[in-house]
Amino acid sequence: MTELADAAAVKQDDQHLIDAGLQAVERAMFNAVNSEVDILRDASRHILSAGGKRIRPRLLMAAYLATGGTDIEYAAPPAAAVELMHTASVVHDDINDHGVLRRGRPSVNAIWGRTFALLTGDFLFTAVYQVMSPYKDLNMLLSRAATALVEGETLQAAAVKNNNFTREVYARIIALKTAALFESAAEIGAKLGHATREQVTALSQFGHNIGLAFQIMDDILDIVGDEARLGKTAGIDLEQGRGFGAVKEAAAGAAPAADPMESLKRRIMSGNYLREAEQQAEALVQMAISLLDVLPDSAAREELITLAWLTIRRDY
Amino acid sequence: MTELADAAAVKQDDQHLIDAGLQAVERAMFNAVNSEVDILRDASRHILSAGGKRIRPRLLMAAYLATGGTDIEYAAPPAAAVELMHTASVVHDDINDHGVLRRGRPSVNAIWGRTFALLTGDFLFTAVYQVMSPYKDLNMLLSRAATALVEGETLQAAAVKNNNFTREVYARIIALKTAALFESAAEIGAKLGHATREQVTALSQFGHNIGLAFQIMDDILDIVGDEARLGKTAGIDLEQGRGFGAVKEAAAGAAPAADPMESLKRRIMSGNYLREAEQQAEALVQMAISLLDVLPDSAAREELITLAWLTIRRDY
Repeated sequence: MTELADAAAVKQDDQHLIDAGLQAVERAMFNAVNSEVDILRDASRHILSAGGKRIRPRLLMAAYLATGGTDIEYAAPPAAAVELMHTASVVHDDINDHGVLRRGRPSVNAIWGRTFALLTGDFLFTAVYQVMSPYKDLNMLLSRAATALVEGETLQAAAVKNNNFTREVYARIIALKTAALFESAAEIGAKLGHATREQVTALSQFGHNIGLAFQIMDDILDIVGDEARLGKTAGIDLEQGRGFGAVKEAAAGAAPAADPMESLKRRIMSGNYLREAEQQAEALVQMAISLLDVLPDSAAREELITLAWLTIRRDY
Repeated sequence: MTELADAAAVKQDDQHLIDAGLQAVERAMFNAVNSEVDILRDASRHILSAGGKRIRPRLLMAAYLATGGTDIEYAAPPAAAVELMHTASVVHDDINDHGVLRRGRPSVNAIWGRTFALLTGDFLFTAVYQVMSPYKDLNMLLSRAATALVEGETLQAAAVKNNNFTREVYARIIALKTAALFESAAEIGAKLGHATREQVTALSQFGHNIGLAFQIMDDILDIVGDEARLGKTAGIDLEQGRGFGAVKEAAAGAAPAADPMESLKRRIMSGNYLREAEQQAEALVQMAISLLDVLPDSAAREELITLAWLTIRRDY
């Protein structure tokens, strides 16, 4: 075989590991929520089987494989844990937002009611804790991200309530509520893969940046999207005063109309706000990808690049 | 000095360690909730500084000292974690129950509203996770107890909804929602103290039994108590169809009256139900105390006995 053919064969094996890794993550997630209490098991399965992009566990698994890890069964539970953590926050978010659609399906609170949705979110949190308990020091990373997530959600709710949704507040919120978990996913993957210190730093920054990009794009989609496309009750974030900082400025200039939400949307979409936010997200992705130079060429490194683009091009 | 005087001096030192240990726990708890996000910090401090009996952290600390542990600063964070876990569930419980009083003060949801109460409970959960993250294998124990707690709360809510609150269901609920955390507190203390396997087993069973006793007595007090005495919205558990299994049988025989709650209470209090439940709780405490024979005599062992009685005699 030529050297090139060798490299191609290695990449193919790598791709196989990525696919097998994601299947292992699915198994680990469903194992983790296999409670004897029907409601918790059923409600957890409901939200998990509705899909979602699995971008956080894919990030962890790709960081693991790209830094030399090969034991997907070892990396799968932490990857499952980051998705479960995200899912817990989604379930509680839908209670606070009265969201009735999530991932194209009725939300947990829409089906089981508020009390059981609250407990299902709690259960998903404790499932994270259980899944991670054998992973010793990695718990320091994930537990910090978990706290950051809750802090970000709280700052957001407070900003809405106090009507002080500035660009600075927005930046702090998305760093805490989204980027911290992306960052810890990438960092945990790298540490599990026994990456060099340089690689660990690069991957955690990579995760942070694409997490920011992801949230900015999510907020853009929330404004321009419709329910069918997003699979969740669209416009909630905007209606409740959230979304990126530009929204507030746009709102200030909006003319009164019969339907203030519609008017606000039109105003935002006609201005440069969305385009600016998109450009910012794209710059974050470009910066993130350039950090991957410290990794050897591999299918897993390509998967990381794919994930980076996926944060801003959801159909990528 | 005589041998007796020696023993007395050792016990006094021991008592000093117990007191210092509980102060260390208080510090660890307030450190753990020292978020930069005002609402989370303030709401957590509000509920923590309202007091409470701290029976779970006292149990952990006493089990630690009674099995030979001496480094209270090492045992304090896990002891804080079990109290934070309990507090998280209390905050979420008050959302689901619309409880407005807790530990003699307005509940978190009464002051900050439902959204922030939900997030404060989540934050307390993640604080547990953060505090415990350096304690490696002990996370297996506490994470199982955390899941059990949520499962117990869920079974309880389901039993109320489906009106199938039998003695068997009640027994399963209190084992999960209360005894599991008591058990893990005692077991963690013993493991931190490098107890023998026999001592670990005895202490985890001790914790389990007094946890059951505590919950049974809590449900009794919920029926006979008044708001001033309990410091929380009393009668909630009964009103919402919970409380020990006997309640349902009592209710079945209750004659219709202008105020069904009052009638039900009178009926329960006139029957033997409360006395039976009290006897059961006392038997559990006696059994628990007899398990402590595997421990050497010490002030910490006496503290364990005090805690056992405290579960059923709250003014002990």
